[in-house]
Formats: sequence, C-alpha cells, structure tokens
Amino acid sequence: MKTLTIDLGERSYPIYIGDSLLDRPEILDRHIRGQQVMVVTNEIVAPLYLERVMAELEVTEKVPLILPDGEQHKTLATVERIFDVLLKHRFSRTATLIALGGGVIGDIVGFAAACYQRGIPFIQIPTTLLAQVDSSVGGKTGVNHPLGKNMIGAFYQPQAVIADTSVLDTLPDRELRAGIAEVIKYGLIRDQAFFCWMEDQMERLVGRDPETVIYAVERSCRNKADVVAHDEREAGLRAILNFGHTFGHAIETGMGYGHYLHGEAVAIGMCQAADLSERLGLLTHHDVERIVALIARAGLPVVPPDGMDAENFLTLMAVDKKNVDGQLRLILLEAIGRATLPTSVPLELLRTTLNEYGRASV
Amino acid sequence: MKTLTIDLGERSYPIYIGDSLLDRPEILDRHIRGQQVMVVTNEIVAPLYLERVMAELEVTEKVPLILPDGEQHKTLATVERIFDVLLKHRFSRTATLIALGGGVIGDIVGFAAACYQRGIPFIQIPTTLLAQVDSSVGGKTGVNHPLGKNMIGAFYQPQAVIADTSVLDTLPDRELRAGIAEVIKYGLIRDQAFFCWMEDQMERLVGRDPETVIYAVERSCRNKADVVAHDEREAGLRAILNFGHTFGHAIETGMGYGHYLHGEAVAIGMCQAADLSERLGLLTHHDVERIVALIARAGLPVVPPDGMDAENFLTLMAVDKKNVDGQLRLILLEAIGRATLPTSVPLELLRTTLNEYGRASV
Repeated sequence: MKTLTIDLGERSYPIYIGDSLLDRPEILDRHIRGQQVMVVTNEIVAPLYLERVMAELEVTEKVPLILPDGEQHKTLATVERIFDVLLKHRFSRTATLIALGGGVIGDIVGFAAACYQRGIPFIQIPTTLLAQVDSSVGGKTGVNHPLGKNMIGAFYQPQAVIADTSVLDTLPDRELRAGIAEVIKYGLIRDQAFFCWMEDQMERLVGRDPETVIYAVERSCRNKADVVAHDEREAGLRAILNFGHTFGHAIETGMGYGHYLHGEAVAIGMCQAADLSERLGLLTHHDVERIVALIARAGLPVVPPDGMDAENFLTLMAVDKKNVDGQLRLILLEAIGRATLPTSVPLELLRTTLNEYGRASV
Repeated sequence: MKTLTIDLGERSYPIYIGDSLLDRPEILDRHIRGQQVMVVTNEIVAPLYLERVMAELEVTEKVPLILPDGEQHKTLATVERIFDVLLKHRFSRTATLIALGGGVIGDIVGFAAACYQRGIPFIQIPTTLLAQVDSSVGGKTGVNHPLGKNMIGAFYQPQAVIADTSVLDTLPDRELRAGIAEVIKYGLIRDQAFFCWMEDQMERLVGRDPETVIYAVERSCRNKADVVAHDEREAGLRAILNFGHTFGHAIETGMGYGHYLHGEAVAIGMCQAADLSERLGLLTHHDVERIVALIARAGLPVVPPDGMDAENFLTLMAVDKKNVDGQLRLILLEAIGRATLPTSVPLELLRTTLNEYGRASV
C-alpha cells in the first residue's frame, strides 16, 4: 500500500492506494472518531461493496443510504435527502459520512458533509478510476444546477481517501476509459514523463494490468496533491486542473447530463483546448497530433458532438465558473507537460476551433 | 465611526459601527471588487433602505432580490431561489452578495455566498440590533430544516460588516428587545462590567438613546470578535456563545418558527440555564435573581411557554448541534461574567429545571 499526504496544514489528510484495501478494516476505522456513521452509495455499487464496508465499521450506529445512480441525481434535492436521513437518525456533529462510489457520490456526500451542522467529517472510498485519480482528491464538492455543472458547492476536505484499485475490476470498460482521460490530463498539464510513460503503456492501462493501474493512480494523485497543496481554493495554480473542462462542461450541459461521461466530455475538451493552443502559436501541430492520438488509444472520443455548434458552445462556456467578469479565460498548453494559467482568449480564434476542430465538413 | 477587526488571518474583516453609515458609499464600495453585485433583502427592509444601497453601488451590474420576511423562509428552498437568480444573470465567481436585513437575511445570504460556485464574496449590512451584535459577526451562516434550526450551513466570513445604528430607528420595539437579549448574553458569559453597565443603563438602551445604543453594539461586537478570533469553527471556546441557545432553539422549534423571536427564546433559555447553574451549585440564587430581573427590564419573556413540558424540551434538545454522541452538554454560568465550557448535565437536574423554573404551579 502507498500512502500519499495532501499537505494542507490542519486540513491535511492521507490517500491510501493499493490492492484489496477494503479487506483491511483498520484503515477505515482509524479515521472514524464518533459512534455514528452513514455510508452513502448508489444502486450500482451497493450490491458489490456496501455489505463489506458496513461490516467493517466498529461503531454503535451505522446507517446505509442507497441513492439512484447517475449525474442527473447530483442535485440539491439529493443532498436534502441525505440531510433528512441524518436528522431522522439524530446524527450529531461528530458523525462521519462515508462516500462509497464514483465522483458523483463523492461530490454529493462531500457537500452534504460540508453543510450538515456546518461541517462533519467524511471519508472517500472512490470506486471508479475517475474518482480515484481526480474527484476524491482535493476537496471540491458540490452539485449541479439546471443552468450549470457544479455551480453549488464547497471546498471541503475529507479525513482520508481509500483508493482500493481492486474495486476497479468491476468497473465497466467505458468508465475505466473515462477515468483515463483525467490521467492523461496530468501528463499534459505538468508531467511530461508521465505522458511519455502512457504513450508506452496505454494498452496495459486499458487492459487493467494491476501494477500499471496502481502506478497510474498513484502518480495521478501525486500530481493532484502537489497542485492542491499549493492552491487549495483555486486562486491561481489550481486552475490548470480545469484543462479541457470548460469545453467539457459545455458538452455535458449541452447534450444533457448522462449523455457523455464526464471523462469523455473532458477528453474532447482537451483535444479542443490543444487545437486552440496551436492556433495561438503555443503548441506545435505534431504535439497536438500526439495528444489526440493518445486520447484515441484510450478509447475516448476526440471530436465534439454533431449536435452542438459553435454558438451552443459559446453560450454554455460563458456561464462557466472559470470566467472573470465576462472575460473568457481558458487553460491552454505551452508544451506537453506544461499548462498556462488562465489565458484570455480572442473570441474569433475560439470560434474557429469550435467550428473547425474535428468537424467532418472541414 | 468605530472600526473593529475580526482577526482571522487571511479571512480577517472589519466591522464598521456608527451613525448614518449608509450615507457614506465609500465604506461599501471599498469592499467590492468585481462588477456584479446582488443585494438581497426582505419585503420589510426593502422600502426603507434598498434604494439607498442600490444607488451607492458603483458597478455595471446590480440586481436586487426581495425575499419574503420571516424565519419560516430560512430554508434551502430560499437559498435555491438566490442561486436561480444568480445563474439567470450569469453572475461569476467575482460577484458580490450584499445581505441587507436582519439575522435571517444574513444567514441565508451568507450561506448562498458560501455555496455559489464554491464561495463568492459577501457583505453584511445588518438592519436589526440582533444582527448587528450577533448574527452578522463570526461567520456562522445557514438555514433551518423541519427537524432543527440551523442544521444546514457553513462557516463563511464576510468581506465586511456595516452596522449603521441609525437604521435601528425603524426597528419595532419587540425586535429591539430581542436584540438586547444577545447583548445581555455577552455580559453574562464573559464581561461582568458590561452586565453592571446594563444594570445602570437598561432604560436608556430600551429607549434607543443613540450613544447608549452605539456603545452596546460596539462592546457586544468586541466580545464576539474576541471569542471568534480564538475559535472560528467552534472547536471549544466559541461554544460559550450558545449560552441559553439549546433551550432557546427547543422553544423556537417546539412552538413553530415565527412564534417567538430568536432573542425572546434565548432570553427564556438564559433564565433556564441560570436556574440550572444554581441547581448545580455553580451560581448563587442572588445572581440568578439579578439575571432574571435584568432580562425582564429589557421587556423580554423570562418563563417558558405553557405549551411545552419537560418532555417536549428534552426531545427537542437531544437533536441540537451542541450534543456530542448523545451526551447532553450545556453552557452554564459559574458567575455573572463567566461561562463554563460545555458541561455534561445530569438528566434529572435538567428535568427539574424544566419542570420547576418559571412554572406557575410551583
């Protein structure tokens, strides 16, 4: 087992990464202080792992809550449902919430923990690759609003993250690949050697070779931990983690939640951001080709949906959080392994990328 | 004008206290950075002060939002309404929210600011005495749940608090008195000299003598600022600010929100807590009499409602946030001017206070 620490002063916490960690109850129990625990999961994950996690808890009150699966349930209404159950059981300020599931569960449960009685402890047990390498690390929690993704939320850190890579065995291929999109992102924004390693190892990673998966999770978490430790609340550096995401969020919202997986939308968004970086003279055409090729080898989509034109994108991107006073700022690449901080983008160049990149007619 | 600073490192902020501060737009404008501002107020305050505040704002986009008045609207549904309007206007992360109103408005708007895009700046302009001396200072924000007061919320600090004591001229007597309950509380928990000053000055304070009011607001804020600076997230010391509140919250919930004003319920709760302190041998009977007498001179209720018996209280107090693992802990007094940290209370003594204190049959 590897242990990484997210270094945030009094809010620091460990990430445990390894095989079969769910068989080691002591890891979970050392992070629970009170006698009340609620395990929140969804209907897909519950039959696979809920019983095991519940059995490990050595507390007097343990309550499971099974939510419906899917991004369309990442709403304030679902958070309210968690509050209702917590209050019905009279859970106090020392209760602990456990998020057992993918990024959606982690985001919802983290936000519920942030707000219940102004903040109670929570633990992340991410069960998807995406959640293990991205959403469970760094303290971003929240839910969607009909007018935009993740518009309601909090920065709130867990007590611990337990990334058991064995649970990825039950993950559908499509979701594994969506997670790889974020793994590729770390290579692109700040770790060229990791990108090159993926150019060598992509087939093993997609094929779930255990050593390769553990290495990818660990190196991804290390990259994220470094960034978050420098900028917990996204005042500056942390924004590079949004590479591809402004485009990606527009795709998710534009096509309706649930149509594209988050990682799939980000995969397309990273290709669009790379294309725009080239048009701004930051990136060579050869590098753009390497990026698109690696993303395609991961089995991820690389072209925007037919159903969305440039105007759809622009409308949806305008409301994205990464805007400052109406100026559209995007994360771009200066090289493979080096992202820019948010850069003000000429609207006409952006429109050209939206009209031309990946469009069959061009 | 007096300026106090709440000393919380990078989250420090000023409280401005004085006459006619709403006539000095520079105070407000120096704390607004972006070009988007939403002023949230209620239907009672809007006709009195909204236009003045809106006129002072030197930004390109300013949006007013008028909410219905009353604690019964301090709900997640109202917070959602704020999100809807913010998103409809495409307000970005640099937008500022202004809470213009009493404690309910401050709590709702502060929580909305804490959660919108994971946190945007906000400014408090408290228009009640209660809000000026208590709820606008210290960063507690949140809303109620049908099963308990303030069960959903965040610790979130404003950019500034502007306490214009002239606006209290339009405050109904009953609300002024409710605010005085919290002023008395500061004397009781940590400032004996202030308590004695109130024993001299209560009639002037109730009579709204301007100098007396300014002094009471300033000294109250100074007391609260000291406590909050030592314990922002209520890990220890800050709990003393809850003196009387566990009883008070039970009264508010038990009688239904809107029946008793918060300060009225707290006034009764402080009397009950003083009675219990005497039963535990902490406080003399003479001190309890002084406390009840001063609260009565402020025109506040000092006996619990007929409609609630000891069992009602115990049920409602059990779910209060101040509990740790089912143990009922209360803030008590060792002397006038000296509160205890949360103290585990023998259930039978608590039951005696609930059955006997202020009950006509005894």
